[in-house]
Amino acid sequence: VIALDAHGADGGFETIAEGARRAGVPVRIYGPAAEFDGFDVVDTPVAIANTEEPVRAVRSKEDASIVRAARAVAAGEADAFVSAGSTGAALAAAVLHVKRIRGVHRPAVAALLPVPGRAILLLDAGANSEVRPEHLVQFAYMGAAFMEAVQGVERPRVGLLSNGEEAGKGTADVIAAHERLAAADPAALNFAGNVEGGDLTGGRLDVVVTDGFTGNVALKAIEGTSRTVVRAIRDAVRSSAVSSVGGLLIRGRVGALRDELDPNTVGGAILLGLRGVAVVGHGSSTPDGIANAVRLAQRAHDERMIERTASALAAAGALRSAPTGSVEAAHDQR
Amino acid sequence: VIALDAHGADGGFETIAEGARRAGVPVRIYGPAAEFDGFDVVDTPVAIANTEEPVRAVRSKEDASIVRAARAVAAGEADAFVSAGSTGAALAAAVLHVKRIRGVHRPAVAALLPVPGRAILLLDAGANSEVRPEHLVQFAYMGAAFMEAVQGVERPRVGLLSNGEEAGKGTADVIAAHERLAAADPAALNFAGNVEGGDLTGGRLDVVVTDGFTGNVALKAIEGTSRTVVRAIRDAVRSSAVSSVGGLLIRGRVGALRDELDPNTVGGAILLGLRGVAVVGHGSSTPDGIANAVRLAQRAHDERMIERTASALAAAGALRSAPTGSVEAAHDQR
Repeated sequence: VIALDAHGADGGFETIAEGARRAGVPVRIYGPAAEFDGFDVVDTPVAIANTEEPVRAVRSKEDASIVRAARAVAAGEADAFVSAGSTGAALAAAVLHVKRIRGVHRPAVAALLPVPGRAILLLDAGANSEVRPEHLVQFAYMGAAFMEAVQGVERPRVGLLSNGEEAGKGTADVIAAHERLAAADPAALNFAGNVEGGDLTGGRLDVVVTDGFTGNVALKAIEGTSRTVVRAIRDAVRSSAVSSVGGLLIRGRVGALRDELDPNTVGGAILLGLRGVAVVGHGSSTPDGIANAVRLAQRAHDERMIERTASALAAAGALRSAPTGSVEAAHDQR
Repeated sequence: VIALDAHGADGGFETIAEGARRAGVPVRIYGPAAEFDGFDVVDTPVAIANTEEPVRAVRSKEDASIVRAARAVAAGEADAFVSAGSTGAALAAAVLHVKRIRGVHRPAVAALLPVPGRAILLLDAGANSEVRPEHLVQFAYMGAAFMEAVQGVERPRVGLLSNGEEAGKGTADVIAAHERLAAADPAALNFAGNVEGGDLTGGRLDVVVTDGFTGNVALKAIEGTSRTVVRAIRDAVRSSAVSSVGGLLIRGRVGALRDELDPNTVGGAILLGLRGVAVVGHGSSTPDGIANAVRLAQRAHDERMIERTASALAAAGALRSAPTGSVEAAHDQR
C-alpha cells in the first residue's frame, strides 16, 4: 500500500481523492477522515504549510500528515509515501523517519524531465543548495540505479552538468567531481563526462547530475520555456482565421506531445538515497498527476530500487565509511 | 565604425562578409585581407581557437584578430568589437586591452534570452563560474543600466535567480547578495527579490542576475528546450496528411514566432563592466546573426551604455573603492 499525504495539493482534497481513485494501486490516505469517506484513510487533520521551516515543523508536529506517512514507511506499514505538499517538509520527514541509506551523505530530489523523447533524470533538483564533490559522485550512482531499476534503462549514460564540455570547465567542486567520476570503473558507471544545459533536452543522456541550486533553476527553466513556447504557438495559431483552421487539423497529433510536456505525466520527483521510497508531486498536480506519482512510487518499490541503489553505491565504493546520524541535509531545506 | 572579428564563426568568412554587408552600419573587418575584397579590412590572418587557453593565447598572440579588434576599441579607433569566436578569448582580450570600468570586480556576459514576449537580460551567462555577493550586486546595476540605455526600459525590474522566492532561499552567496540588493535605494534599483527558473520566460522581469555557472546552464537549457519543443511540434504536425495540411495553414503566423525564438535575432551576448562595447555571437551565427550583433554593438555605443553603466554603479555606491589592475576575471575563462 502507498501512503498518500492529502495535504498540500493546490486542488485540495478532491484532487487527492480522485488521484487515489485513478491510481489503480492500493492507497492509504493521510488526511482528515471526514473528507475521504469510503477510502482507506488514517485520520490526520494536521498539515505542514509551505511557509513553515521544514525541519522544525516536522520535529514539532508529530501528528502532521507527512510525518505520519513517513513513519508508516519507516515502520513497514506502507511501501512508499507520496506528497504534493512542501518538498522541504517531505525531505525532512524522510530524513528524520525513513532515514538515509547507511553511508549516503545527502538525499537528492530526482526529477524526470518533461521533455519530448528519451526520459532524462535530473538530480539534485532542489534538496541541497550547496554540495561537495563526493555528494555529486553519489548522485551519479543513485540516479543510474533509479534509471536501471525503475525505467529499465541498460547502462544509463550519466553526465555531469557544467558550463562547458571540457573536463576543466565548471566550479572547483564540479571539476573535482569530474575527476572522480572519470576514474570510475566503466562497468559500474557509464560516465559521459561534462554536459551542458542544452544536453538536458538533447536526448543523448539518461541521467544528469548537478547541485540542488543549479538543478532547481534548470528544471524550472525547462518547464517554463516549454510552457511559454507551447502557449506562444497556440496564440499565434489562434491569431487568424486561416491558421485557426490549421490549428484544428493539427490538434490530434499535437495533443499527444502536450502530454509528454506536462509534468503531470511523470507525476512527481523521487527522493533518492533513502531507506524507503518517497515521491513529491507538484503542488499544482491534477488528479492524473497524483495517480502517476502513486504509480511511480509503486514501481520503485516493486523494482526494489532501494536495495539496488544501496548495492550499486556499495559496489562502487561510493558510500562514506563512517555512517552518519545527523540531519544536516534536512537543515538545508528552509 | 565597429571592429568585426572574422575568425571563429562556423559559417566561415562568407558568413562574416555577408553579415557585414547586411548590418547597415560601418564595419571594419579583422581577418585575412584576401578573403574580404572590397571591405574595410585590417589584414589579420592569425586566429585564436576555441580550444586554446584564452588568457595565454591573448597574451602570446599579439596579432590575433580578436586582440587587434580589442586594441582598436581601446585606442578609440573603433566604437565596439564583435566576435563569433571563443567567448573566453573575447573576454580575455577585452579585460586585458579594453579594461574594466574602474571599480568593477568582474565583467559579465549578458544575454537577451530568445523567448517570446518581453525581452529579459540574463547575466552572468558564463564569464565567472564562481562569484561573490558583491559581484552579483554589480551585475544587478550593470544589467539594469544596459536595459535602460540600450533597450529603452524604464526602471527595469531586476530579479536574483535562486531556488525559491523567499529571501532565505539559495546558496550563502545568493542570500548575502539578496540582503544587499533588498537594502538598495529603490530609486536606483527596482529590485524584485528572488526569482526562480520559471521566471526567466515568465515575462514579469527585465533583468535576472546569477553566477556564470548557473546562468550558462540556464541559457543553454532555455535555448535547448525551445529548439526541442519547436522541432517536436513540427514532427508531430508532419506525421499525418491531415495535420500536414494544418501545418501549411499555420505557417505564416508561426513563422514570426520562430524569429523570436532564434538566437540570431538578438545576435549575441554583450560583455558588461568594460570601458568599451564588446559583443560575442554564437559560433553558429548566420549572416543575419552577425548583422544583428553588429547593430547591437552600435546601439550600445550610440546610447552611451558605458558612461551610463559607470554612472549607475557610482551613484549606487556599488563600485569597489580600490581600483584593480589584475586580470583575475579573465583567468576564470579556461
